Amino acid sequence: MSATVEVVSKGLDNVVVAESKTSLVNGHDGKLIYSGYKIEDLAANALFEEVVYLLWNNRLPNKAELETFTQDLATHAVLPIEVIQHMRQLPRTANAMAVLRSVVSLLGHYDADSEDMSVEAVRRKSLRLTGQITTACAAWARISSGNDPLAPRADYNLAENFVYMLTGRDPEEAEVDAFNVYMVLLAEHGMNASTFTSRVVTATGADYHSAIVAAIGALKGPSHGGANAEAMMQFLEIADPHNVDKWFQENIKSGKRRIMGIGHRIYKALDPRAQILKEKAEALAKNSGNSKWFEIAKRLDDMARADDYFISRNLYANVDYYSAIVLYTLRLPVDMF
Amino acid sequence: MSATVEVVSKGLDNVVVAESKTSLVNGHDGKLIYSGYKIEDLAANALFEEVVYLLWNNRLPNKAELETFTQDLATHAVLPIEVIQHMRQLPRTANAMAVLRSVVSLLGHYDADSEDMSVEAVRRKSLRLTGQITTACAAWARISSGNDPLAPRADYNLAENFVYMLTGRDPEEAEVDAFNVYMVLLAEHGMNASTFTSRVVTATGADYHSAIVAAIGALKGPSHGGANAEAMMQFLEIADPHNVDKWFQENIKSGKRRIMGIGHRIYKALDPRAQILKEKAEALAKNSGNSKWFEIAKRLDDMARADDYFISRNLYANVDYYSAIVLYTLRLPVDMF
Repeated sequence: MSATVEVVSKGLDNVVVAESKTSLVNGHDGKLIYSGYKIEDLAANALFEEVVYLLWNNRLPNKAELETFTQDLATHAVLPIEVIQHMRQLPRTANAMAVLRSVVSLLGHYDADSEDMSVEAVRRKSLRLTGQITTACAAWARISSGNDPLAPRADYNLAENFVYMLTGRDPEEAEVDAFNVYMVLLAEHGMNASTFTSRVVTATGADYHSAIVAAIGALKGPSHGGANAEAMMQFLEIADPHNVDKWFQENIKSGKRRIMGIGHRIYKALDPRAQILKEKAEALAKNSGNSKWFEIAKRLDDMARADDYFISRNLYANVDYYSAIVLYTLRLPVDMF
Repeated sequence: MSATVEVVSKGLDNVVVAESKTSLVNGHDGKLIYSGYKIEDLAANALFEEVVYLLWNNRLPNKAELETFTQDLATHAVLPIEVIQHMRQLPRTANAMAVLRSVVSLLGHYDADSEDMSVEAVRRKSLRLTGQITTACAAWARISSGNDPLAPRADYNLAENFVYMLTGRDPEEAEVDAFNVYMVLLAEHGMNASTFTSRVVTATGADYHSAIVAAIGALKGPSHGGANAEAMMQFLEIADPHNVDKWFQENIKSGKRRIMGIGHRIYKALDPRAQILKEKAEALAKNSGNSKWFEIAKRLDDMARADDYFISRNLYANVDYYSAIVLYTLRLPVDMF
C-alpha cells in the first residue's frame, strides 16, 4: 500500500502540486492514484480536487486546469430540489449511511446521463456525484438535526463547501485544512470491499449510480467502513483526558477489549498518513477552542506506544484513529463518519 | 444446475407438494433449493410460497404451514404509505429497475428491523421484502402509467396479488398459473452476479436492505438481468407472425444478429423449465385473447430448431425466451422485466 516511487516533489509545498512526467508506477490497479506521488506528500500538500484530477487523468492539473476543475465540481455539487424534498421526508432517525444509499439511488432518477454508459457520460456522472455526495452528507447532517440544508457555493472548493454547508458560516482555515487532508487520504483505497462490489455491479453493465449505491452498502458494514466511528465512540466513553489511564488499565491491559483505530492489517509500522492527520486534528481542535477529544486520543495513543504489547506487535494509530477527532470536531454526527 | 436426486413425487400434482425426507442433495450452496426436488417438478406443481418455504427451511411446508406462510407473506407485502409517497414523486419516465433500487433502499428507513442483524430479524426482513418487492413492481407499473397503486390483499397468494395489483381486477387462473411458474423458476439462481454482489456486501456486516439494493443494481445490468426484455424487444420488432421468416433470413441467417433468448451458457440441451414456461405462455396468451406475441415467439423458435446452425450447436430457447411472453401478456412494462 505504500508508494514505490519517489516523488519529484517540486511544487508539493504549494497548493498546486507540480505536474510530473514520472510514470514508473507499480502496475497494480490500486496504485494508479499515486502516479508517481507518495500519498503522504499529496495529503500534506494537495487539494482534494488535485488528487481527484490525478486519479482521473493520471497526471496532476496545472493551475488553470485546477481552477476550472474545482469550479466544475462545485457547480455540479448541487442536489436537485426533488432529492432535497425526498430527504426532508425521511425519518430524522434514519441511519446516515442508509440515507446516503437512498440519496444516491434517487439522484440517478434526476440525472439525464443515468442510463448513458459512454465514457464521457460516466465522467460527467463521476464529477457530479463526487460533489453531490459531499452536499448530501452536509444536507443530511442539517436536515436530521432540524435545520435547512444549504446549497454549495461556486467559489468554494469541496472542503470549504463541506464545512460551509455543515455549519452555515464561512469555513476556517484549520477546518478546511483538516477536512481536505481527510478527503485526500480517503481518495486512496485500492481494491477493498466497496470498490470490489462496485466492480462486480459494473461488470454486469449496470449503470454508475447502481454501482455507487452498491458500494455505499458495502461501506456501511462495520467491518469495512465505521472504524473511525468506533474509535470516536471509545473516546466519548472515556469522556475526559484524566480517565484515559484508568480506562486503559481496566479495558486494554486486562485484555478485555482492544483499542479501536490502533493497528492495521497491512501497515506494521507508523503510517505516515496517520501522523499528518494527527497534526491536522491537533490544529483543528485548538482552533475550535476544545481540545478535549484530541487530548483523550493523544493520551491513549501515547499509552499504547509506551506499552510492551503494542510495541512488540508494531501496533500504531491508523488513519481512522485521528480522523475520528477531525470529523467530530467538524460536528459531523458520528453515524455519518 | 440440474437436480441430481430423483424426487419422491407423491403429491407433486397437487397444489401442496409432499414433504420429503430425501436429503441426498448435492452439497453446493446453489443446490439447496432443490432439497431433493427437481426444479421442473416444482415449477410445474408448486406455489411460489412453497418454494420460498423450501429454500428457507430446507423442507416443504405441510398444508397448514403453507397457509400460514402464504398469509404472512401477503400481510407483510404492504408498502408503508411514506414509500408510496416517495414513489409518486419520482419522474414517471424513471428506469424501473432504478426505481426498485430506490424503493428497497427507502424501505430500509421504515423497517424497524433494518439495523438488526440477528438471524430472526433477517428472516423477518426477508419475508417482508419478498412481498414488498412484488407490491413495489406492481405499484410502479401503475404509478408510472398514471394510475393509483393498489395494496395487496391478505386472502391472495403472491402470484394472485401481483396480477390483482397490476390490473385492479380479480386475477384469472391462467395469469396466476403463468406468473407463479415464472416466479418459481426465478427463485432458483444459484451463485450469479447479483447473489455474489449481495454476499460481498453482507460480508462487510452491512444490513439486509443494503445487500438487496446492491443485488438489484447488479441485476439491472443488461449482461445479467434484462435478457427477457431483449427477447421481447425482438418480438416487438418482428411485430407479426408473418414477418418471422423474413426477419430470420435477414437478421439471423445473414449472421448479422443472434436470437435473444435462444442458447444458454450452461444448458446445451432443451431446458425442461423453458418447455414448462412455453406451455404456460401459450395458455396465458389464449386466455388473453391475443396470441400474436406467443405465435411470433413460437415460429421463431421453430425456425431455429429446424436450422442447421442451431441444431449443430445445441441452441434451444432458454427460460428468458418464453418468460418475455408471459410478462408482456400480463401487461408488465418491458423495462420492468
